[in-house]
Amino acid sequence: MTSTSARETQIVADPDVPLVRITREFDAPREKVFRAHTDPELVVQWQGPNGMEARVDHYDCRTGGSYRYVHVQDGQEYGFHGCFHEVRSPELIVQTFTFEGFPDGVALERLVLEELPGGRTRLTATSLVDSFEGRDAFLASGMDTGVREGYQRLDALLAG
Amino acid sequence: MTSTSARETQIVADPDVPLVRITREFDAPREKVFRAHTDPELVVQWQGPNGMEARVDHYDCRTGGSYRYVHVQDGQEYGFHGCFHEVRSPELIVQTFTFEGFPDGVALERLVLEELPGGRTRLTATSLVDSFEGRDAFLASGMDTGVREGYQRLDALLAG
Repeated sequence: MTSTSARETQIVADPDVPLVRITREFDAPREKVFRAHTDPELVVQWQGPNGMEARVDHYDCRTGGSYRYVHVQDGQEYGFHGCFHEVRSPELIVQTFTFEGFPDGVALERLVLEELPGGRTRLTATSLVDSFEGRDAFLASGMDTGVREGYQRLDALLAG
Repeated sequence: MTSTSARETQIVADPDVPLVRITREFDAPREKVFRAHTDPELVVQWQGPNGMEARVDHYDCRTGGSYRYVHVQDGQEYGFHGCFHEVRSPELIVQTFTFEGFPDGVALERLVLEELPGGRTRLTATSLVDSFEGRDAFLASGMDTGVREGYQRLDALLAG
């Protein structure tokens, strides 16, 4: 892995287990980055690819809570849902994730936020599934575009 | 894998991914086996090793619900908690699982019940974690005794 500019999103396929690891740095304090992940009114402003409208069905971001949201593009709805295993402010969210277009696929996701000097934050997000085929199909689906564009909009939201 | 007697519990470490797969057959219809996993008053009667008293803190077994229970042995409490990603009666439960003695360890668990001829049921339970070291430590922890003894008590409960 080479060194990268601060705002470059790294998306890495783990060599040993069927997991994707995303790392990204933000020019904002950890509490603010955390809140952008837990407050549904903020989440819908940045998550997903450009040109996609997000609408929250429910988003009860606490340990033992659950969520569902939809992305709307060209009149087509794409649903996502899961439950929150643990929400530990301002550092950790462990949740499940299903894209309803593939209802039997479930990922276990872990978001870790670390404080960096200068009021900055490093985000590490992992997504674990039960097969390398499923993980590699997820990587090949164009998810990287949605992740990178979403984090660019999150940069703007955090700066606002 | 060799053929086994109907009530033998098989516990297999997947060679490719950090997952444990448990299979077991029961002399009872699927609906009854499913209910023994969703009704907390039944769950506490069979789950875990012999000599362990189980007590439910909360057990909201529905899609988006959560649970916590404790096992009590010799005055010592062992807590377990997680959330229910999907509960699809009478065939599927997908949930997360943490043993509170190792609070950063999270497993993604999937229970599948299949109908067999003669009113019998095949159970397949998988548990996925993010490292082979974690999976192998779980297997070496003596979990197999708790699983086998629990299913023997479940046999008795289903026959009652």
